[in-house]
Order: sequence, then structure tokens, then C-alpha cells
Amino acid sequence: MDEERLQKQIDFILEADKLKKIFRKTYLADGSRYENDAEHSWHLALMTILLSEYSNKSIDVLKVIKMVLIHDIVEIDAGDTYCYDDAANEDKAEREMAAAKRLFALLPSDQHKEFMDIWIEFEENKTAEANFANALDCFQPVNLNYASGGISWIENNIAYNQVLKRISKVKDGSIELWNYAKKIIDSAMLKKYIR
Amino acid sequence: MDEERLQKQIDFILEADKLKKIFRKTYLADGSRYENDAEHSWHLALMTILLSEYSNKSIDVLKVIKMVLIHDIVEIDAGDTYCYDDAANEDKAEREMAAAKRLFALLPSDQHKEFMDIWIEFEENKTAEANFANALDCFQPVNLNYASGGISWIENNIAYNQVLKRISKVKDGSIELWNYAKKIIDSAMLKKYIR
Repeated sequence: MDEERLQKQIDFILEADKLKKIFRKTYLADGSRYENDAEHSWHLALMTILLSEYSNKSIDVLKVIKMVLIHDIVEIDAGDTYCYDDAANEDKAEREMAAAKRLFALLPSDQHKEFMDIWIEFEENKTAEANFANALDCFQPVNLNYASGGISWIENNIAYNQVLKRISKVKDGSIELWNYAKKIIDSAMLKKYIR
Repeated sequence: MDEERLQKQIDFILEADKLKKIFRKTYLADGSRYENDAEHSWHLALMTILLSEYSNKSIDVLKVIKMVLIHDIVEIDAGDTYCYDDAANEDKAEREMAAAKRLFALLPSDQHKEFMDIWIEFEENKTAEANFANALDCFQPVNLNYASGGISWIENNIAYNQVLKRISKVKDGSIELWNYAKKIIDSAMLKKYIR
């Protein structure tokens, strides 16, 4: 029994608890409050289990789940960057890499490497697993925004083309989910949730 | 493309969003507020990835992750039952089974069966996967309670033997995590977090 190893893992698990306090710009489906990153990550993992059949390519489901569970942990240091905030997105990659370096280094070296590799794979978005994980990460807030009556879109005065551009990543991961997302935003346009 | 199937899956995913509003009696590590079930489930899934090496028996990690992601969904209807509330625990199984029947039936029949089977396996706690998932489900709040300065234990006037009994399930899943949990509660006793 390597006590130092277990202590490092527990320290990381407690540090990761802070993800429950990082709030996104997406409301819960009932519109009552913003969603936080830990809840969002859980929702994506659940969606991975239920929707993996719609991936364009064959995927390792466990790997996708690992990706979505850890993809936002960097936001503990770097904060949530709203996808329609162009200025904040300029230095996002730099801020998040610094966060990944600090946070994942809390882990034993083998898990440090595993988490860093998985997070970079998600960010680079080149593999089948990353494509599907990114598709869900874009699809989930569209789904929630629509369910909540479009509050977040209305508050931020978001246009149809902005959402359409935002969901382009869904297409790379899943044509079926992209078709569904397009139906949602067409309906959101008719309901004036987006302009 | 089976549109009805996808719609059922989306309906379930939106219904599951309510898990973000079911609060537990465990505080976040910083003691600022109660943790909700979605955050708790995310935390357990992350812990499954990091701590599976400590399972007493060989386990299918993906199956354990599925278990911890869905194990509390029944609480959307049945509510959170505090583990030290003996009266509420009397009809817990009945309330949760009714919830499982309603909620999982929203899914297409194959996934309805899969989720019901996984949830029952978790509850029965007989397989290696269920033992490890239950071990994490008991270990995580002990870890958070201790980190928060024992607030929840103090508020509810919890005794050493109650926590010791509560963590007995940890032993069935992982001797290493049980040893660690025992160290935590011995220290919690010295710090008067528990009586």
C-alpha cells in the first residue's frame, strides 16, 4: 500500500470539488439558476451512455466518459469562458493550459499523464472520441437553453448564425444529433429565443 | 433514423436534469453549501477513474461508472434519504423502486432494461462492481464531511459508531479505502467533529 499515492489522489479529488462552484452561462432546464461545471459534466457522461449509438464513428465509450468528466476541471483556475465571448476566448487556451499543468500535477505521475493526454485530446478534437465528446459538449447547452425557454440566449442577445456556428462541432461527432440540434434552433428562431 | 427513439432519450435527459436540484446532507469541501445529487454523481465517477485500482476484486470500470452516474436518479421522485435517518430509511426501498419504474420507463425499452438492471445491481450490492460503487458512495461524503470541518456531523450530532457502521460498506469494496476512512473518522473524533 503506497500511502503517498492514495493521498495525492484524495488531494486531487478534494481540489476537484471546486468544480461545483464554477458556474456556466447555461440555465437548468427549468430556468431557475445557472448550471455549474460539475453538474454539466455529469449530464454529459449520462448522455454519453445514452447517445453513443449516434456517434459518426466507432468510439471507446469509457474514453469519451473520461473526457467529459474531466474536460472542464481546468476551469477551476481558468474560469468558465462563455462560448459567445470572443474577447475572453482569445487567451482561453493559454489560461486553460496553465490550469491543466497545475491541477493534473496534483495526481501521481501516471494519472497526471493520463489526465493531461485525455484533456489535450479533447481540446485538439481530432479523434473519434474527442469529436463525440465535443459534440455532446455543444449539444447539451442548446438542449437546455431551448428547454428553459431560451433565457440565456435572450439575455445575451444571441443570433441564429452564432448558434449555428457554435453547433458545427456537433456535426463532426454525430449527424443525427446535429439534425436534432438544427431542428431545435429553427424552432428557437420561430419562438424568438434567438434573433 | 428512429426519431421516436431519440426523442425518448432526450426526454429522459431533460427529466434527469432535475437531479441538479436534489440536495444531500453533505456540504461541499469548503463548507459553503449542501452538495446536490448531480455533483455527487460526477464526483463518484471521477473517483471511480482514479481509485479503481483499490477495488478488492477485479471490476469492469465502465459498469461502475454507469452505476454511480445513475444510482441517485430515483431521488428525483423519492428525494434524498439521509443515511442516519432511521425512520425515513424504513420505506426508502419502496419509494425508490416506484421512482425507478416511472423514470427509467421514459427510455427506449432496451435502455429502460439496462438502467433498471444496473440500478438494482447497485442496490442489491452483491457483485464486485456494486461493492466498489457502494464503497465510493459511502467514502465520498466521509471525505467531504471531514474536509469541511465536520459541519454536517456536528449539525446532526452524529456519533463515532454511527459513522463506523455507515462506512462498513467501504470495506466490502476496498480495504485500502476503508483503512483510509477509518483514519479520517479517528481524526474526526479527536477534533470533536463526531461524538
